[in-house]
Amino acid sequence: MSSAAVWGPSAAPYHREGQHLSITVVGSIAFDAVKTPFGERERMLGGAAVHFALAASFFERVRVVGPVGDDFAEPELAVLEEHAIDTDDIERVPGGKTFFWRGEYGWDLNTRETLDTQLNVFEHFEPKLSPESRASEVLFLANIQPDLQRRVREQCPQARFVAMDSMNLWIETARDSLLQTIAGVDCLILNDAELRELTAKPNLVQAAREIFSWGPPGPAAIAAKQGEYGAALLTPDGFFGLPAFPLEAVVDPTGAGDSFAGGFVGYLAARREELDAAGGELPGDLLRRAMAYGTALASFNVEEFGTERVARLTAEEIFARVGELSEMTRFSDVRVPLRR
Amino acid sequence: MSSAAVWGPSAAPYHREGQHLSITVVGSIAFDAVKTPFGERERMLGGAAVHFALAASFFERVRVVGPVGDDFAEPELAVLEEHAIDTDDIERVPGGKTFFWRGEYGWDLNTRETLDTQLNVFEHFEPKLSPESRASEVLFLANIQPDLQRRVREQCPQARFVAMDSMNLWIETARDSLLQTIAGVDCLILNDAELRELTAKPNLVQAAREIFSWGPPGPAAIAAKQGEYGAALLTPDGFFGLPAFPLEAVVDPTGAGDSFAGGFVGYLAARREELDAAGGELPGDLLRRAMAYGTALASFNVEEFGTERVARLTAEEIFARVGELSEMTRFSDVRVPLRR
Repeated sequence: MSSAAVWGPSAAPYHREGQHLSITVVGSIAFDAVKTPFGERERMLGGAAVHFALAASFFERVRVVGPVGDDFAEPELAVLEEHAIDTDDIERVPGGKTFFWRGEYGWDLNTRETLDTQLNVFEHFEPKLSPESRASEVLFLANIQPDLQRRVREQCPQARFVAMDSMNLWIETARDSLLQTIAGVDCLILNDAELRELTAKPNLVQAAREIFSWGPPGPAAIAAKQGEYGAALLTPDGFFGLPAFPLEAVVDPTGAGDSFAGGFVGYLAARREELDAAGGELPGDLLRRAMAYGTALASFNVEEFGTERVARLTAEEIFARVGELSEMTRFSDVRVPLRR
Repeated sequence: MSSAAVWGPSAAPYHREGQHLSITVVGSIAFDAVKTPFGERERMLGGAAVHFALAASFFERVRVVGPVGDDFAEPELAVLEEHAIDTDDIERVPGGKTFFWRGEYGWDLNTRETLDTQLNVFEHFEPKLSPESRASEVLFLANIQPDLQRRVREQCPQARFVAMDSMNLWIETARDSLLQTIAGVDCLILNDAELRELTAKPNLVQAAREIFSWGPPGPAAIAAKQGEYGAALLTPDGFFGLPAFPLEAVVDPTGAGDSFAGGFVGYLAARREELDAAGGELPGDLLRRAMAYGTALASFNVEEFGTERVARLTAEEIFARVGELSEMTRFSDVRVPLRR
């Protein structure tokens, strides 16, 4: 897998906090009510930006942009701040209620039904980034309405690496806007079914080729999330596939995709020296390692409800799991004499 | 991944044909009518035993056991014999008609509908193996009624490695018999959905643990076929995951699972010296390489209709694809300093 041209020139000096480059994420901050075959929770901290931020916070300082209501209080803030996540750009809407999602998963956790979605403070959300968040060199646009994603993107002219997620709702109801947003990012992170729906192509290879044909500008790398099967990375001339980490018990898949994105983007940001050395390219080997870290973070996410597992995760656990993933995917290529 | 105890003692001397150990396969020999988004065929050579035999024939001599009708004639036989497949145990049923299957695939080829199944000569099939087929040390029980699978197994007391496939029909209608058959094999090769259905467990890790708990005797390795996502190998203490080879165009998935089994079992049989050296164990590294060869053969199978692609495949193409698979799954594990 060769490199993909992405990592733009630095608008130097880096905006760093201490030793760390900051990552800005915009997306939902939510209360989730979730029922799975293994139990249920009536109200837990959730939302794409939260799951992303917790996962990415192991690698770099993360700034969360998004609205919350009066019901978002100290205990929720504490989870983020304990992980040194910057909450200055979390907008408190007086009299508002935090975004709420209720869902239920089927027995093998491969299907889920949304029982209730209350946009609440998201209905009139207009992202306003602080100078610090605008100065981030790495940006993740979690799954929100694509106009909003673009307005955040435009506020971050210094961003050198921008990744995004989306969902079937926007593919179906805001396709033109979504395509504009996609044209402004370096990496698209979507479920494989969404990639097929977005492109009307029956398989990943064709779907990725279609998306690359829309540019430039546009993504130079596509990460296809495949749920329990793992994830694949497609670049204009390369493919990398990685199975999900095998777990005896998947308790709650909510947020797995955002934790994947957090590990993936976080790892890339943490290897900025490698990005700089590659001179405007995204090295294929770096992307693969980022996939492994994303996969590891996603696997921890699903081991318990909501943010519970990732919130108490340690560096050693992450390293150990990436090491296991590496072991579980390795094979030697010993030929045998074939008969013809 | 450590070894799994499977490869039994040799009933020496090996039954070899020339330089090659023979593999016996029992299963359907069929005419298939298939419609996919890329075209259709009204009548083509198919059946699990045929797809398996063509794939495995690159590695060892294969003996096919199964019934055909008067309509199975020289052109069909020729495809097998050109690949040095032994057809002596193909039973011609006078006045009978060959097994027939008609199916249609959905746009992304992940769903298929069976439109017609005519058992024909299979309805009263009673496998009778020749002394040569009985003497095979490697046996594959393709997807047929589990009583029949067992009757073949019992005729091959010298078999040192036995693998099997099955399907949802037998899980639902002949479960007790199927469990008895499973207890007599070394390796179970099933779709992941079938593994879940068989065990009523929601994920692969739990499903495999359940199956291992039924033994001994029973399988020491389980290959879970995951369609477009690839395949996973589970042993009592190990896991290996391999993505499918990414293809721009999947034309016809029919027989992919049997081609996978043919590459997998064929590679193992061809490495009999390695099996012997392991002293009654199935080395994990050997199983992984077998998975890669199975994955490569399956990927060729789906590139064209029926047996068309595998029938003209070359050793160099197989080696090249396994090499590409190895490249597409490799990643280095470079750590970054984490923040906590």
